[in-house]
Amino acid sequence: MGELPLYLIRHGIAIDRELFSGQDSERHLTSQGEKKTQQIAERLVDLGMSCDLILSSPLIRAKQTSEILLNAGLADEIQYHDALAPEGRFGDWLQWLDQWRAQERLGLALVGHEPDLSQWAEVLVWGSSRGALEVKKAGIIGLHLPSGDPVGQSTLFWLTPPRFLLGKVPKV
Amino acid sequence: MGELPLYLIRHGIAIDRELFSGQDSERHLTSQGEKKTQQIAERLVDLGMSCDLILSSPLIRAKQTSEILLNAGLADEIQYHDALAPEGRFGDWLQWLDQWRAQERLGLALVGHEPDLSQWAEVLVWGSSRGALEVKKAGIIGLHLPSGDPVGQSTLFWLTPPRFLLGKVPKV
Repeated sequence: MGELPLYLIRHGIAIDRELFSGQDSERHLTSQGEKKTQQIAERLVDLGMSCDLILSSPLIRAKQTSEILLNAGLADEIQYHDALAPEGRFGDWLQWLDQWRAQERLGLALVGHEPDLSQWAEVLVWGSSRGALEVKKAGIIGLHLPSGDPVGQSTLFWLTPPRFLLGKVPKV
Repeated sequence: MGELPLYLIRHGIAIDRELFSGQDSERHLTSQGEKKTQQIAERLVDLGMSCDLILSSPLIRAKQTSEILLNAGLADEIQYHDALAPEGRFGDWLQWLDQWRAQERLGLALVGHEPDLSQWAEVLVWGSSRGALEVKKAGIIGLHLPSGDPVGQSTLFWLTPPRFLLGKVPKV
């Protein structure tokens, strides 16, 4: 069991809580949110990002985000886990992770919500969270998890607002 | 004195220590290092990044990096400070920062070396460093510093390997 790249991806722009009459879990991406998430997904694939699995929050806005990422070719499979829902249990996810890593699989993306995702990242990297990571909608955190216990032992190699992945760039 | 965006930028790819007969402070960027730094600089300006000042390490490889950033239009001025040299004094820079911020100036980029830059960033964000940030050559860290003492009080909004700023991207 070697080092694992872990991507934590916040769902795209969803319809406002105030403007939506249904349950929070049913809130969906806006058409702008879908379009931007699609652009981000294509950019990530072009950058060479590839995962075995997307583990996603079961809420609609996260599910839609995960499906866009899957269809763009970022991963082969989506699974849903309640730990990724808002205020989900980090400990439950750690247990899941342990079993998943035992299968020698490579590359995992989590799709979920704030402030949970950035707090999880801080706990993995620094052992505790002070809410010091700014993660926009469709923003991405990239960690390297060591073999063994990742809590307070992981490293951060990427944190980007989505807009820094788009727009005009120099040719290489 | 409001929130300050602070960019910490590692110098570009320089000639290998083993292949260079002069002093370490004289090591210069390779032609590939110059080209890549130029591409990164243009991309940063296209993304809207703009600073009043680049505060740079006085070592040649950092000076060259700072000049490329200046010429691309990222900032109006370069100043050099020994605190940005390898193993420079963080406390000296904090004193400098206090005076500089009193002038109500906006947007500061530091150009320097690893592991110093990422350690400084960790101290600004979490109050201490465990070497948990991975910063490649010409890589960038973006922080927001609050008004008042920034140590352990800043937030991280950006950390990117330079290659994630280049290459093919979707049109927006």
